[in-house]
Order: sequence, then structure tokens, then C-alpha cells
Amino acid sequence: MEATIMYDFITPLHCVRQNQPLIQCITNFVTVNDCANIILATGGSPSMSQDIREVEESVSGADALVCNLGAIDFTASMVAAGKKANQLKKPVILDPVAAGTTQLRREASRTLLEQVHFSVIRGNASEIRFLSGQQSSGSGVDVSPKDAATIDNLPDVLEMTRSLARKAGSVIVLSGALDVISDGTRSVVLHNGCPTMARITGSGCMLTALIGAFCAATPEDLFCAAVSATAAMGVCGELAEKRRLTNQTGNATFRTDLIDAMFNLTEIQLREGIHYELF
Amino acid sequence: MEATIMYDFITPLHCVRQNQPLIQCITNFVTVNDCANIILATGGSPSMSQDIREVEESVSGADALVCNLGAIDFTASMVAAGKKANQLKKPVILDPVAAGTTQLRREASRTLLEQVHFSVIRGNASEIRFLSGQQSSGSGVDVSPKDAATIDNLPDVLEMTRSLARKAGSVIVLSGALDVISDGTRSVVLHNGCPTMARITGSGCMLTALIGAFCAATPEDLFCAAVSATAAMGVCGELAEKRRLTNQTGNATFRTDLIDAMFNLTEIQLREGIHYELF
Amino acid sequence: MEATIMYDFITPLHCVRQNQPLIQCITNFVTVNDCANIILATGGSPSMSQDIREVEESVSGADALVCNLGAIDFTASMVAAGKKANQLKKPVILDPVAAGTTQLRREASRTLLEQVHFSVIRGNASEIRFLSGQQSSGSGVDVSPKDAATIDNLPDVLEMTRSLARKAGSVIVLSGALDVISDGTRSVVLHNGCPTMARITGSGCMLTALIGAFCAATPEDLFCAAVSATAAMGVCGELAEKRRLTNQTGNATFRTDLIDAMFNLTEIQLREGIHYELF
Repeated sequence: MEATIMYDFITPLHCVRQNQPLIQCITNFVTVNDCANIILATGGSPSMSQDIREVEESVSGADALVCNLGAIDFTASMVAAGKKANQLKKPVILDPVAAGTTQLRREASRTLLEQVHFSVIRGNASEIRFLSGQQSSGSGVDVSPKDAATIDNLPDVLEMTRSLARKAGSVIVLSGALDVISDGTRSVVLHNGCPTMARITGSGCMLTALIGAFCAATPEDLFCAAVSATAAMGVCGELAEKRRLTNQTGNATFRTDLIDAMFNLTEIQLREGIHYELF
Repeated sequence: MEATIMYDFITPLHCVRQNQPLIQCITNFVTVNDCANIILATGGSPSMSQDIREVEESVSGADALVCNLGAIDFTASMVAAGKKANQLKKPVILDPVAAGTTQLRREASRTLLEQVHFSVIRGNASEIRFLSGQQSSGSGVDVSPKDAATIDNLPDVLEMTRSLARKAGSVIVLSGALDVISDGTRSVVLHNGCPTMARITGSGCMLTALIGAFCAATPEDLFCAAVSATAAMGVCGELAEKRRLTNQTGNATFRTDLIDAMFNLTEIQLREGIHYELF
Repeated sequence: MEATIMYDFITPLHCVRQNQPLIQCITNFVTVNDCANIILATGGSPSMSQDIREVEESVSGADALVCNLGAIDFTASMVAAGKKANQLKKPVILDPVAAGTTQLRREASRTLLEQVHFSVIRGNASEIRFLSGQQSSGSGVDVSPKDAATIDNLPDVLEMTRSLARKAGSVIVLSGALDVISDGTRSVVLHNGCPTMARITGSGCMLTALIGAFCAATPEDLFCAAVSATAAMGVCGELAEKRRLTNQTGNATFRTDLIDAMFNLTEIQLREGIHYELF
């Protein structure tokens, strides 16, 4: 029966609705509004303060911390808040935005990984490849097609993800057309989502914020929390895509519908919509 | 007949449509776009510059100043711009975001209140309690349920609001499920709005921006301007909620519909929708 | 036949869909999300990094650079990135937001124009008047009615635009109810768009971002790229306005519909919708 509990990807959604966690985010100015609204859509409460003079106090009152490297000017705040969250044993999530693309980001991600223990790291394939020490082809914030996880390279990507999870002691979420998630022991590939998610800014940032909320609500199983959040995002993306195709709208309405879908997402929808393989 | 004039909550909406005031905001990066768009929805023009090297000049060309403590890094800009606006006798509005939750914010709000005279202070119950020197339970940006104004504690909340209004020489707007507004002499409780307003980020910030626009357009009666803006926000919240329930959307569409409702709000809708008690 | 090639305002839309350029923007926090989403709507990829420690590296991987003076704190980043882009012969676009309204902005725009060569400068009439050394009446970010291009003053505005284009060696886009665009030799007046575009924040910023994407995709004719982008924006504004009037929505839905329209805009729609005069 242990196995059943180990792979419960639905209960974390229930818990986030129930617990209404407070999520402290240090995140970038491009998508901060979307991150706040998707946390609110799950029933959580967002706090977006980032000033180094107060982030330790802010994180003390919060249930999880999300560090988004898009806020590169606030790396010192992430380190301070991250250490405090580690002390207080609160989940800390990293989004290594464009981690490999500039010297500044390579150094910042190194510093962060040295100074803070991350419960979950969520990145696209280019970012996760960089953190794994592999050749990465990313140049902007979007994944390079050369780096992406596909059916063909899946065994390699799984191995890379699993191995980074062990090395970092973190749940790794490599998100994309295929989401590959591993805690080093348990691994999952998710087939949810849709290509339009890459046509809005903030799909990745919102997912990371969401993982923060799910981890805050289910701290006893961060792997299942991360899978649940990622699947929830994918299922909501599919729901929003269905509306986009029906109503012939575009990426802006898609973003609105995606957050709305999260607001209304039920456990039944998640259970029926999740499409995963265990590895 | 004086009484009729004293409590005219409809004309300020007329004036904001007519005068198209320029509102200078020093506000946070989470909801700045929504604040700008709701000012535009009323017919006003927003300016969001915050650099201390130019805010005094910016405020000189504006009709009102809005200071939002969410922009905690720009407290010095708020002080400089606030002093200038005071000199020029332009309305200055404070939104004491999460004022009591960290040492940094406690100090910043003290500094602001010492150095700048605010025409209106708009906060949630946790924030207004803190400014009143009362015990406050807020930990993030959202109100703590323990602090909220309810039918049961209304006499105490009214007294606190009235007394802070006298002490600060400001109109105080304590917004929430019940909005309690006082200038120390006249007091109003508004019953407009809906719970979904707490499920988007920026309801409070947008209301504060709106109060800025209404005060700029009706500087001769800031109390009525503040009540009118708060009632307008509540009525638009109700209109957006009706659409949300009809169309089964979520918080993202609700935000859009709320701003749209403000764009289209008529004096007749406000007059028929406002639900207030005088105290 | 040369003339036909010289005035092809449709192919740049085709090229941006095809080439999916990476656009590096140093832009303001008010409308950054909208700028990113409209770039994504065209098929491009946005990068919004602005830290001076990395912008030169970021721009090296990008296909064009957009500098928006709304990000006044990051003027030094704009200079550094702009010089690098000039070296690499990548298009650089300037949006001189509120350029004439404060001493700080007057100096920053002077510095930028001295240190960086801009391929295209896109501003409203108040901003372009200021850059031309003419009397300008702007006080906020919005155009002053006194400065706007109208049928009556068109010859003067055309002459001013053409002359600034020659002096700066840039394509000048003066956008508004009438858009006046000149590279010093070729000049166009566009009659697309609608007044509601002035009722959302970010119409101008989004247009500048769009021009960046179109120039990146058609670097061989920046004039046609700029006209194509401006016409595309105007046509999308008209499509969004049609929906607004049909559905009786407001400025928030209009913004969403405008970005959606860009997502779906076809070459046929642009060809049939563009309304221009050559000068």
C-alpha cells in the first residue's frame, strides 16, 4: 500500500485548497503579476517582497519560498531568504531562469546552489542541462529546441534529471512538451500541456510559483507535490487550449483562461486529466 | 441642504470622467499595470515614474500623488514627492501595504507619516489596525481574518477609524468585506464588493489608485471622493462577479471584467448600486 | 519595379512569423508583461534582462535591442547594450518615454542619442517634438493634445519627422491618431488604429517592442519593417475595437483582444486593413 501513497498526485491539490499557504516569492518583474494571481487561483496567498532588509522576516511568516533567477538583481535577497527558510525547514523552490546564458547567471546560480538547499528546482531543458553540467544551447529565456526532452532522448534526459536530483538533493522538474520529474529515486514523465504554453510569457514562472504553493501545502512529500503542481498546470493548459481553439482567441486570452482553469480546477479534473508514466 | 452636499458620492465619478486627471503613482511592481489601467478606465492618465531624481518634477505636473508601500525600495522617493505635493496642495494618498509585518515597513510607514501629510490613507484592516497602534495579526499582504471588520466588531472598528482620521488629519479608508471610511467627523460603512476581490492581486492597490484619481478630480471634498471611489470599486466588483458566475470563469477574467466595468461605469449604476450607512 | 520593393509593408509580418527573432528589451516595469506577450504573439521570443552586468552578453545572443526610456533607472544598461548592438550591427530601437517632461529624461535621452545609433525611434507627438528641438507640451507619459498630428498640421509634422530622421539617421515613427513615419527619404502616413488604444497603458511600448521584432526579421529594410509593425498594431487595434463595441467590454478586454489579434493576424488581414499614404 506504501506504493499507492508514494504516488498520490491528487491530494496535494486538495491540500493547497484547504491550507491556503502563504508563498513568499522573490521573482522577476515580467511575470510577477501572473505568479501572484495563479497562487491566488489555487487558494494560496502570495507575498512578492524582495528587499534584503526584510526578506528573512517575510519568509519567517510564509509557508514556502520561491526564488526566480529572473530577479537577478535580488540574488543576495534569495540567498538570505533561502538560508532562513532552510533553517526554518520550509520548502524552497528555485527557478533557474536562463541560468546558463550569461556569466552573471552562471555565477548567481552557482552561488545559490552552494548557499541554499532547494527542495525543488524547476527549469526548462536548457536550464536543467546547464545545472547538470551538460552542454546547453539556450540563448534567451526560452528553451532551445536542441535541448528539449523528446520521446527519442527520453532515457538520457531521465538519467540526467535523476542524477541531478541525487546530486542536489532536490526534486528536479524539467518542464516542456514532456515534463520529466525526479527525486533521484522516483521519476515521472508527464504528457500534459500544450504548445501555446510556450507562446505566453510566464508559463514556467507560474509553474514554479505553483510548485511553491503545492509544496507548502504538502511538505511531507515534495515529489508528489511537484508532480501534482506540474500536472495541474498541464491540465489547465489543455483546458485553456480547448477554449482557445473553440473561441479562436490568442495567447493573451489563453493566459487568462489558464489562470481561470486553475481557479476552478477540481480533483476529479486533475485525476481524469493527468497523463503520466512512472520510471 | 448642506447635508445633501456633504454626502454626494456620485459627483466625484462625474468629475473624474470630466477632468481626466494625471495621477502620479509610486507603486509596486506586482500590480502597477492594473493600477495604470484602472486609472485609464476612469478617464484619468497614469504616470508611474519613481526615480528620486525626477519624482518632484513629475508630481508638479500631476493632479494627485499615490504612494504605495509595496514599492518599499522607493520610500525616499515617496517622501520627496509627498513633500512636494504637500507644498503644491495636491492630494496625496497612502497605501500602507503590509505596514505592520516587518521592521522595515514599520519604520517606513512611521517615516512617511512623519514627513508627509496624507489626504487619504487606504488599507486593509490589518494595516489600519497597525497604523492605529492596535494589535494586528497580518503576516503577508492580505488581511488577517482576525483583524477584519465585521457586523459584530463594527462599533470598535468605526471608532478606531474615526480616531485615526482625527490623529492623522486624513480620510481613512479601511477596505474589506465591509468598507469603513471616516474623515474624523463624517463616517460611512459601505456594503459593496464581493469575496472574489480578495482572490486577485491588486484589488487594494487599484482602489488606492482610483481614490487618487477621484481625489484629484474632487479636491474640495476628499471624504466624498474617497467614498465614491470605494463604492465604484465595490459596484464594479459586483458587476464582475455576476459575469464570473454566469460565465463560470475565474479570478483572471474577474480582474479583466472589473477594470472593464470601471471603464463603463455610469453615474446611474453607481447611484443604484451603492449601499451605504452613515455614522 | 524598385518602387514596389521599396514599399512592401506586408513581407515583414511574414518574416517575423518565419524567423522567430529573439528581442532583447530594456523596458519599464509598467508594461513589460504586455511587451513580452505581444512579441510572443508575433512568433518572436522576448528577453527582458536589464542588469548592466549582463546586457551586453544578452544582446549578443539577440536579433534586436529595444530601449524604453520608461526604464529610466537602466539608462546605463541601455547605453552599454546599445553600443554592443551597434558594434554587432543589430537593429536598436528607442522609445523615448516622456522624454521632454523632466530634467532627468531630457539628459538621459540626450546621452542615449549621443552614445548609441538608433535604427528606429518610436514616440508619441510630444516625445518626437521634444527630440526635434521643438516646443513640446507633454507632462505625463501620454501625448498632449496640443502636440498631436492632425490633418491640419500634417505638412509641418511630416517635415519635422523627415528632418529628425535625417539628423538622427533613424527611421522615425511618430505614432498617434495619425502615424507619421519617415526614414528621411521615404515617408508614410498611416490612418489605422482607434482611440481606445490610448485608454490602455502600453500601446506605445508594445508598438516599440513590435517594431523591434519586425526590424529583427527584416533588417534589410528598417523603414518597411517599422511601417509594417505600426500598421499591424493599428489593424489589430481596429479588430479589438470591433470586438469591444460588439461585446460592450472595456479597456482591459481590449488589451487582451489586441494581443490576441496580433497572435492571429494574417498577411491578408494586414494587406486589406492597412490604410496609408506615401509622401
